[in-house]
Amino acid sequence: MPTRPALLPLLPVHDTVACCEPLVHEVLAADQAERLARVLKAIADPARLRLLSLVAAQESGELCTCDATDRLGLTQPTVSHHFKVLVAAGLLARDKRGVWAYYALVPGALDALAGLLATTGSAR
Amino acid sequence: MPTRPALLPLLPVHDTVACCEPLVHEVLAADQAERLARVLKAIADPARLRLLSLVAAQESGELCTCDATDRLGLTQPTVSHHFKVLVAAGLLARDKRGVWAYYALVPGALDALAGLLATTGSAR
Repeated sequence: MPTRPALLPLLPVHDTVACCEPLVHEVLAADQAERLARVLKAIADPARLRLLSLVAAQESGELCTCDATDRLGLTQPTVSHHFKVLVAAGLLARDKRGVWAYYALVPGALDALAGLLATTGSAR
Repeated sequence: MPTRPALLPLLPVHDTVACCEPLVHEVLAADQAERLARVLKAIADPARLRLLSLVAAQESGELCTCDATDRLGLTQPTVSHHFKVLVAAGLLARDKRGVWAYYALVPGALDALAGLLATTGSAR
């Protein structure tokens, strides 16, 4: 039986998008608001925002944990924690190769989140 | 001398946008990440997300505090607190008329926030 994950599983952005109308189209139901708030909480943190932008800035499209610590001045356990939160939220994908893990943006995930907040295309 | 505001002043979204490149264009500086995280924290809350969507859903474009409590099942002090956070973040505008306050979306604020998260238009 698999061990229970250390982090409370967050609903990935794509599931959130599938479940919910954009914020400005109709009044969010309580459960939809809970789901969207969990994803937003994952990025409402300066270190995680910088990690996301650092991953996005990589020419290769992915960032090794070994590089993240130096660039952001954070310890390995702290970086690992932040990466886990971003993966659980469905924003980053993790690929373990050898002793290091590599992280890449989940295609479309940030755009999906942005789409929930944007009023463009709304009737207003 | 003016009294200190009860809430820590958040940087309005428009100032955040003016200060920062979109998340995926370059690595966010520490101070930019702090500012953006503060605005995201303002909306990373189920009740505040529902309030925002309720304001956006109004035909008149604005919501009276007197209607918000009934619709969301929250007490007046709780609703007032959430409104203050959203106004401080630059997402809602407040207009006091008589005994009630009315709240409307700040035009472009949510779109500006969405634009910071979207990868569209990035080189990637």
